Amino acid sequence: MSVPGGEQAFVQWLRNRTPPAASVIVGPGDDAAVLAATGDANLIVTTDMLLDGSCFRLTEAGPHRVGRKAIAVNISDIAAMAAQPLAAVVSVGLPRTDGAAIAEELFLGMKSIADEFDVPIVGGDTNSWDGPLTISVTMLGTATPKGPVLRSGAKPGDWLFVTGPLGGSILGHHLDFTPRVKEALALHELVDIHAMIDISDGFALDLHRLCAESGCGAEIDAEKIPISAAAKSMNDGKSPLEHALGDGEDFELLFALNDNDAHCLLQQNDIPVFAVGKCVERGISIMIANCLEPLSAAGYEHRFD
Amino acid sequence: MSVPGGEQAFVQWLRNRTPPAASVIVGPGDDAAVLAATGDANLIVTTDMLLDGSCFRLTEAGPHRVGRKAIAVNISDIAAMAAQPLAAVVSVGLPRTDGAAIAEELFLGMKSIADEFDVPIVGGDTNSWDGPLTISVTMLGTATPKGPVLRSGAKPGDWLFVTGPLGGSILGHHLDFTPRVKEALALHELVDIHAMIDISDGFALDLHRLCAESGCGAEIDAEKIPISAAAKSMNDGKSPLEHALGDGEDFELLFALNDNDAHCLLQQNDIPVFAVGKCVERGISIMIANCLEPLSAAGYEHRFD
Repeated sequence: MSVPGGEQAFVQWLRNRTPPAASVIVGPGDDAAVLAATGDANLIVTTDMLLDGSCFRLTEAGPHRVGRKAIAVNISDIAAMAAQPLAAVVSVGLPRTDGAAIAEELFLGMKSIADEFDVPIVGGDTNSWDGPLTISVTMLGTATPKGPVLRSGAKPGDWLFVTGPLGGSILGHHLDFTPRVKEALALHELVDIHAMIDISDGFALDLHRLCAESGCGAEIDAEKIPISAAAKSMNDGKSPLEHALGDGEDFELLFALNDNDAHCLLQQNDIPVFAVGKCVERGISIMIANCLEPLSAAGYEHRFD
Repeated sequence: MSVPGGEQAFVQWLRNRTPPAASVIVGPGDDAAVLAATGDANLIVTTDMLLDGSCFRLTEAGPHRVGRKAIAVNISDIAAMAAQPLAAVVSVGLPRTDGAAIAEELFLGMKSIADEFDVPIVGGDTNSWDGPLTISVTMLGTATPKGPVLRSGAKPGDWLFVTGPLGGSILGHHLDFTPRVKEALALHELVDIHAMIDISDGFALDLHRLCAESGCGAEIDAEKIPISAAAKSMNDGKSPLEHALGDGEDFELLFALNDNDAHCLLQQNDIPVFAVGKCVERGISIMIANCLEPLSAAGYEHRFD
């Protein structure tokens, strides 16, 4: 069935597809959504905007995968805090041509992953305009009783881990990845995570961010970096390692543990992890063929000079 | 001082301008913001997206007023729930040309009204792209111990009130209005508000929405509608009353009270209110010159056929 054109009818269409959830007192359709009180749990809030031509190409990816990605990137930020997703709101600017068809597929793509992670979409704002498709999602989460994990707690001597292979996400992973919520929550139970970040703009750049917040440096071992099959298949002049270090949108977690916890983690097989290096006092470098080189903060950054 | 170009430097610039707040454990700069637990208070969530050429014209309004508006429209939705604003996150898509200058003024405009309403801006997402300026704000709020006020509680016999004059907001009010938080909280203490909505898409359309959610009708008295000076000055072929009924973006509150509370409210002078009609069993009509006419749901609606 197709989405009715017009904001009000679309909201009604959405309401018919929003099942009741224990955490949701008022869902879409009022001036705002109302969520049940979260008691003592700290509230986590993150927002990510996706823009056609910049973060995705609608004509290539199609609205279903774009909708899925818009929710997934936000869930990934909640995972990076080792928190539990709670609810999402979505605002969209729809192109005037095919807006209703895009809205339907976009929503169904969002709903597919939101349902998978048990995140109700509790509200939003639907607009049409003469510009390209633009989507903004805000995701709320609740910290576990252990509290959220920040970027700022890594210490010299800590081990650095990632949760999966890196690089080449442009070939499809950037649309189809699974946010590492389950892994983050399991890690948070098992060990004392000193610092964590999700790799959204490239391993090297996000490593620099984690180190900057923690006031430490890092030494990475190139041989330990897990490289994705996609990175190996790129064949565009850059090496697979360069792709693994510099490509954005892996959405794996990068985190720091002390020596004891690192050994504890390496003895389990439930959570896939790769030890890639260690934190040091200062400087960010990478060991390549027995030679320690500076690792620059390459990666994706929005420019607006 | 000008904003540094580039996402990371801009985030640092923002962090330097974000003072500590009691409710904010982690502000801008990590994967997500962390807010203090809200205990037993229900959480209110609303989001509004503003698009250049549709919701504002950047070249006419300038980025400072656009930023102010982006925050203000969201605060207005929190007011419509008779709740207290708690925190905001902001995502922007900046045009590549003049992006840094726009970002600075946009943020300062946001901050001017956020500070006025004591709402910390705790996070966001800064993008650049080839499209026009796009801004999405998500505002969180906390319900008072009396709970949130929905659109759905009006009953036949209730009086309908608005908090200020309507119409002609295109002449400037749509950028400079003050969200009715103070008024909503004072009303919520004083009386038992059955239903409330903020007039964002026009009195008639938003009245239809309130009535639809409440399952009742309404009879409005045209002579009681407060008409703004701007509506009277439009001089474009439509009457001032037509502007007051149909123009969007008044951001006054429309609410319903029972007979007792209505009389109680009319005896005070602290909160400006105008009684404009009553709820009835069914049908939405307006008395103009002793003649009861149907009042159609005119107003602004986004179309995307």
